[in-house]
Amino acid sequence: MDLTLHHFPLDPASRQVRLALGEKRLPFTEVQVRYWERPREFAKLNPSGMTPVLVAGDGDDRLVLCEARAILGWLEEAHAEPALLGREAAERAEARRLIQWFDRKFEYEAGGFILHEKMEKRLLGLGAPELANLRQGREGLKNHLFYIDGLLQAREWLAGRRLSLADFAAAAHLSVIDYFGDVPWADFPGVKTWYMKLKSRPAFRPLLNDRWPGLNPARHYDDLDF
Amino acid sequence: MDLTLHHFPLDPASRQVRLALGEKRLPFTEVQVRYWERPREFAKLNPSGMTPVLVAGDGDDRLVLCEARAILGWLEEAHAEPALLGREAAERAEARRLIQWFDRKFEYEAGGFILHEKMEKRLLGLGAPELANLRQGREGLKNHLFYIDGLLQAREWLAGRRLSLADFAAAAHLSVIDYFGDVPWADFPGVKTWYMKLKSRPAFRPLLNDRWPGLNPARHYDDLDF
Repeated sequence: MDLTLHHFPLDPASRQVRLALGEKRLPFTEVQVRYWERPREFAKLNPSGMTPVLVAGDGDDRLVLCEARAILGWLEEAHAEPALLGREAAERAEARRLIQWFDRKFEYEAGGFILHEKMEKRLLGLGAPELANLRQGREGLKNHLFYIDGLLQAREWLAGRRLSLADFAAAAHLSVIDYFGDVPWADFPGVKTWYMKLKSRPAFRPLLNDRWPGLNPARHYDDLDF
Repeated sequence: MDLTLHHFPLDPASRQVRLALGEKRLPFTEVQVRYWERPREFAKLNPSGMTPVLVAGDGDDRLVLCEARAILGWLEEAHAEPALLGREAAERAEARRLIQWFDRKFEYEAGGFILHEKMEKRLLGLGAPELANLRQGREGLKNHLFYIDGLLQAREWLAGRRLSLADFAAAAHLSVIDYFGDVPWADFPGVKTWYMKLKSRPAFRPLLNDRWPGLNPARHYDDLDF
């Protein structure tokens, strides 16, 4: 079944889907969406105007999956192996709790501030970052890195013994912030080791190759040995 | 298996879970959480401090499910009938798209403003609502009611032919706003008819009985014939 992913390379939700597609070794065609320009064609696919959207198949069997939640849910059902949400109820509950944590709490307290100031303002031509917002985002980020560090002291991966969508959710959000050089890795060696393991996986490679015109990545961004 | 739901009656996420438990006819014990006081005992259950949390079983089999996403996911897996996410891939994709729509876009553009001004400020003792925020929330709400109305012109339920978690997500968010009397039902008769059908279901009854000290519901709130 042909898969086409409509995404924005520096969107954390899109990145979660790309990591899952990569881990499941599902090849796909990609279409990059400049979501901030509200392209009319894209709004026909997803009325919210948000990336990612995955189109599977065509003709009468065409399935349009809008938003990471629908795409990742479908991937676990239609392409079950390797399982990325855990096999037992407790693992799945923990992975889902953490996905919600990163998609909501992390974005609200940390990622949202930093990416608005450093990325969206440039994409929209809204001028220089506001330092108070950046500071608040960086403070929030530090708290979240402490939390991740605590989890990793008792676990190999965020949700337990196995790599899961929780790791991809966290890594997707962190990796975009890392593109802009704002993750204080040196202060969190445990988190750095975990991120290094993720960064070395083949599914991560395409993310490290992302470059967006006018937005330069930090020098260490694609370095596996950062 | 014993179920205990930790929730706040006027929290849209908690309400989605109560509706799903009701439709699946699963009895549960309830514990009301004053989340804005950040109770220490509750933070041990869910480090985010957010409702809802469902505790299933006890002893070694005790399963702690944090956040609506984890609870609703588990309910569909462990208590599959009646299915609330649809049976076919397209139905499930549409239900998941809409859950995301209401939990994020609706809350961001409409519910968040209204509930912060009318509910949270009173719970936190932060004084009178700010009219500019209320106005922005009501404007957003109107746009979302137009969108729901459009969906219902081609469908019996929001995600298609069958009642689903998408209806519960929408109804949970709208019902709390309706508690405060802010839904302009008269302008959206199609949406009103849909909400009436939901309101008449036994699973909805407990929500209509909710009262919170110091927060009075609109007069029509529990009226099935509003």
